[in-house]
Amino acid sequence: MPTILDIAEYAGVSSATVSRVINSSGYVGEETRKLVEEAIEKLNYSPNKNAQHLRKGSTKNFGIISTQFNDTAVARINSFITTAYSFGYTTTLFVTNGDKKREVEAFDLLKSKQIDGIFLIYRANDWSVLEKYAAFGPVVTLHNVDSEQIPSVFIDHYEGHKLALEYLWETGCRHIYNLYGTATGLNTKRRIQAYHDFCDAKGIPPHPSDPFIHTISAGKVDAFVSWFLKQQTRPDAVVTHSDSIAALVVSRLRRKGIAIPEEVSVIGFDNIDVSDVMDMSTIDYGIEEQGRNACRLLLQKLAKPTDALGPLSFKLIQRKTTR
Amino acid sequence: MPTILDIAEYAGVSSATVSRVINSSGYVGEETRKLVEEAIEKLNYSPNKNAQHLRKGSTKNFGIISTQFNDTAVARINSFITTAYSFGYTTTLFVTNGDKKREVEAFDLLKSKQIDGIFLIYRANDWSVLEKYAAFGPVVTLHNVDSEQIPSVFIDHYEGHKLALEYLWETGCRHIYNLYGTATGLNTKRRIQAYHDFCDAKGIPPHPSDPFIHTISAGKVDAFVSWFLKQQTRPDAVVTHSDSIAALVVSRLRRKGIAIPEEVSVIGFDNIDVSDVMDMSTIDYGIEEQGRNACRLLLQKLAKPTDALGPLSFKLIQRKTTR
Repeated sequence: MPTILDIAEYAGVSSATVSRVINSSGYVGEETRKLVEEAIEKLNYSPNKNAQHLRKGSTKNFGIISTQFNDTAVARINSFITTAYSFGYTTTLFVTNGDKKREVEAFDLLKSKQIDGIFLIYRANDWSVLEKYAAFGPVVTLHNVDSEQIPSVFIDHYEGHKLALEYLWETGCRHIYNLYGTATGLNTKRRIQAYHDFCDAKGIPPHPSDPFIHTISAGKVDAFVSWFLKQQTRPDAVVTHSDSIAALVVSRLRRKGIAIPEEVSVIGFDNIDVSDVMDMSTIDYGIEEQGRNACRLLLQKLAKPTDALGPLSFKLIQRKTTR
Repeated sequence: MPTILDIAEYAGVSSATVSRVINSSGYVGEETRKLVEEAIEKLNYSPNKNAQHLRKGSTKNFGIISTQFNDTAVARINSFITTAYSFGYTTTLFVTNGDKKREVEAFDLLKSKQIDGIFLIYRANDWSVLEKYAAFGPVVTLHNVDSEQIPSVFIDHYEGHKLALEYLWETGCRHIYNLYGTATGLNTKRRIQAYHDFCDAKGIPPHPSDPFIHTISAGKVDAFVSWFLKQQTRPDAVVTHSDSIAALVVSRLRRKGIAIPEEVSVIGFDNIDVSDVMDMSTIDYGIEEQGRNACRLLLQKLAKPTDALGPLSFKLIQRKTTR
């Protein structure tokens, strides 16, 4: 891959002259220009696209960074991409698989202006590593981060979880069981808190959070179903942290002959497509609006015209998996 | 954003010297090195990561390019990303929204060695525009393309569609109706062909392909359900082109009180998660293997160690939406 320096050497001119020819800036004599153009052709040099973007100061491209790529991430990514496109921006998605180095490389593209802004979904590095990048361009996150530089489209799962619990209680459920998400996640901590506060208010003893914390796979749902079938007094309601997991719970319990909602109510979270086609009750909070808001916040930070932020609020969606 | 030329000017040295300092190549006197390093710090210059990759000849990064981002694309993308990661490669996803210029820009990254290979899912440009890029690095596609340069993990939907039709016939269905995908797609043409050949073989008249060609949205499924309810002789089976659409058909028909499979059988295609949790019959062809094979083909072209390609073959998955 030839550089400007190679072109300069081949053409017998200075690299500054090559730069002037490539950028069509400043005066270059006709003879000299020809020499440079010949060298460019001969060495098959292609001026760096990114360098050209640099000069314009914008690539009209946003980056989405996520450690993983699951159904819930996909719903947000989709609405972000669509919104960005409607404002003339394309989107590049970096899936880091939790690789810290790879995440930093993606953030470096903001520094070198190869992307105009970043929507960080799930992160690999500590905030201390990432937050300094906000100086180079707008960063929006899904995480609950206390930062003036980095706005967040975070929602507090406490309220959503509480809404599900209260609704199940109202419909007569008295043995509510909770399936929690990622063991280390803040959302899980907030959900456990909501459950304990709920139990305090109702004067009932809480069940232990283990062993069905980190219920994020089909295997763990199968383990839960086996446990469920063995109980003398079975739960009469199951609260989950995502529609994907709720769909597995409904499907696996029904295969074992358990009637839903007659024997047990099941409620999801997110209100993504699968809850619609399965007629599952769930908690909606505007997951697509969350993706759109992330994009609007980036555009605001870039002082571009955009729509006002849409509201994110918890709403119970009653369908057919609860009484 | 400062360039090498700015550093050279600031430090009062040649750009070749700056280049030697940055690349730690060739001799540079201690005094001169200090001047350059000071200039780099003063001007806040960051050596171009991509240029550094160029020298190593590999970024260990693959690109996936797609015009859109739907459930079916996601299943393939996920298995591609996981496979790539297990071989030490990260993945960047370019969603072009059908923008031809954006697609070319992503392909240009192969030319400038900023990505090592491309998996093209849905394309925007003509093949004549894209195929020349195969000279710069490996490109694998999902499209049915007759090219020695570009291998494909394409599968011919003709056989899959025929398998669904034959199975429904065997289970006693005599008024089979087809919901087709994208009107301009080759897969749709092959499915229509399979249906017409099937009708010829059974000696029955085919129904017209319109108006339920391009049934790729919830709105179109609703229109189909309205049409279905109005028929004097209703179809006793519905063949779809994707599980996402089959899930909508099952859900919407059930909401109208239609018993599935008693009154009408519904069969999906792809065997993605939603068909499992909804207990839908479907056609499996190894959608995840398709994503893995795409990655393996790129690794083969790069002469990297990889697994053998996995088999892609049609298999009927009998669940509870067919008799």
